Amino acid sequence: MKIYVVGIGPGSSEYMTPQARAAIEDSDVVVGYTLYVDLVSDLTSGKEVKSTAMKQEVDRCRMALDSALEGKNVAFVCSGDAGVYGMAGIMAEVAEEHPEVEIVTIPGITAACSGAAVLGAPLIHDFAVISLSDLLTPWEKIEKRLRMAAEADFVVCLYNPKSKKRHDYIDKAADIMHCAKAWDTPCGYVKNIGREGEKAIVCTMADLKDNDDIDMFTTVFIGNSATKVINGKLVTPRGYKNI
Amino acid sequence: MKIYVVGIGPGSSEYMTPQARAAIEDSDVVVGYTLYVDLVSDLTSGKEVKSTAMKQEVDRCRMALDSALEGKNVAFVCSGDAGVYGMAGIMAEVAEEHPEVEIVTIPGITAACSGAAVLGAPLIHDFAVISLSDLLTPWEKIEKRLRMAAEADFVVCLYNPKSKKRHDYIDKAADIMHCAKAWDTPCGYVKNIGREGEKAIVCTMADLKDNDDIDMFTTVFIGNSATKVINGKLVTPRGYKNI
Repeated sequence: MKIYVVGIGPGSSEYMTPQARAAIEDSDVVVGYTLYVDLVSDLTSGKEVKSTAMKQEVDRCRMALDSALEGKNVAFVCSGDAGVYGMAGIMAEVAEEHPEVEIVTIPGITAACSGAAVLGAPLIHDFAVISLSDLLTPWEKIEKRLRMAAEADFVVCLYNPKSKKRHDYIDKAADIMHCAKAWDTPCGYVKNIGREGEKAIVCTMADLKDNDDIDMFTTVFIGNSATKVINGKLVTPRGYKNI
Repeated sequence: MKIYVVGIGPGSSEYMTPQARAAIEDSDVVVGYTLYVDLVSDLTSGKEVKSTAMKQEVDRCRMALDSALEGKNVAFVCSGDAGVYGMAGIMAEVAEEHPEVEIVTIPGITAACSGAAVLGAPLIHDFAVISLSDLLTPWEKIEKRLRMAAEADFVVCLYNPKSKKRHDYIDKAADIMHCAKAWDTPCGYVKNIGREGEKAIVCTMADLKDNDDIDMFTTVFIGNSATKVINGKLVTPRGYKNI
């Protein structure tokens, strides 16, 4: 018995790899947050489907483990990449006492990559990926990462820039990164990547503040000191033109 | 006319998205470094193929642009993700004077994601991606990024850890990150991801030094302060178990 922790990409099936598809097809049981299970409904007919509401991550892992211990193959589906803020980590923790259960991570296109593609090419040079969610991480730690990423001139990609309770975190993040990034640094954000209502905006770091358009389904990109806008696209040069 | 800059993933076709496949199928011309063009040879029959040796990045972009200006659709193929140290940036720069040519980035599975999946789940929390190649970036800048990424307790993923000329850069990188990461920090590296000879090793940061196994086709992962080894896999917890 195997548990495949499967990254299905941003949503639309055109982003899902053949490897992810094959892992779901090879499984007897499909486990996941309801929305993600629905996204692969064309692959689940004839399979046992176990879905749960948002949060309840540990419960979903236990469901997957229980099925595997019954001798079944399980596909545990996540949006984006199963290994980037995904379920591959907690699944390994929950199954720690059962080394006989093989856990296979199937990578997918994470929002940093799918969002960057929609905006142009912001991640062509060294970058840092930071989640602004402080549900599981102390805010002081997030603040330090933002400050150091700015000082080291990384391109920065922000996941979870806002939620209902945390409407001003993206504003705070911009203020912190202003320690080393100018307000006119080229930036961009993408909403609903690979889903209905996809929308990409190229802007400046100043425009990220007091911005009602940014919500919890948005991925935000802050350029480095060389990032520029070329024909409406956000582009970080790597320096090939200088050779 | 369109130029699709296409990330084909690490190599094996099981990692290539349907979107990447469709972009190549929709093209009249396929441009790329010889090795990558060969990896998609099942899709290029009947198409004009223009390949060049390593380096020569700007030349390849000009080839793609010339074909697009003749009214053709072009697929410019890259390994991994076209937008992560890929050709999407320089393509936009080379085509800057031709806004009538539409450039479309097609994301792919980058080595950070495919390598992390092979090792387990090291990138479950905030991470920094850094290339150790100083062909296009001053070494001082790379050093600063390594130091700050370590101080901010990012998981770090290193591309281009070595080359023939730069055999000690991974050693230097480990020394720099030791400013804030212990020598026994759980680490891992993956060689030839998704290709023949794939090999994954879980080790400590000390093991990265004087390591003849690490070469230019290796991607290296250095854990954060919470990263641990669970049943032989490299796992960074996010904290769900503490809720």
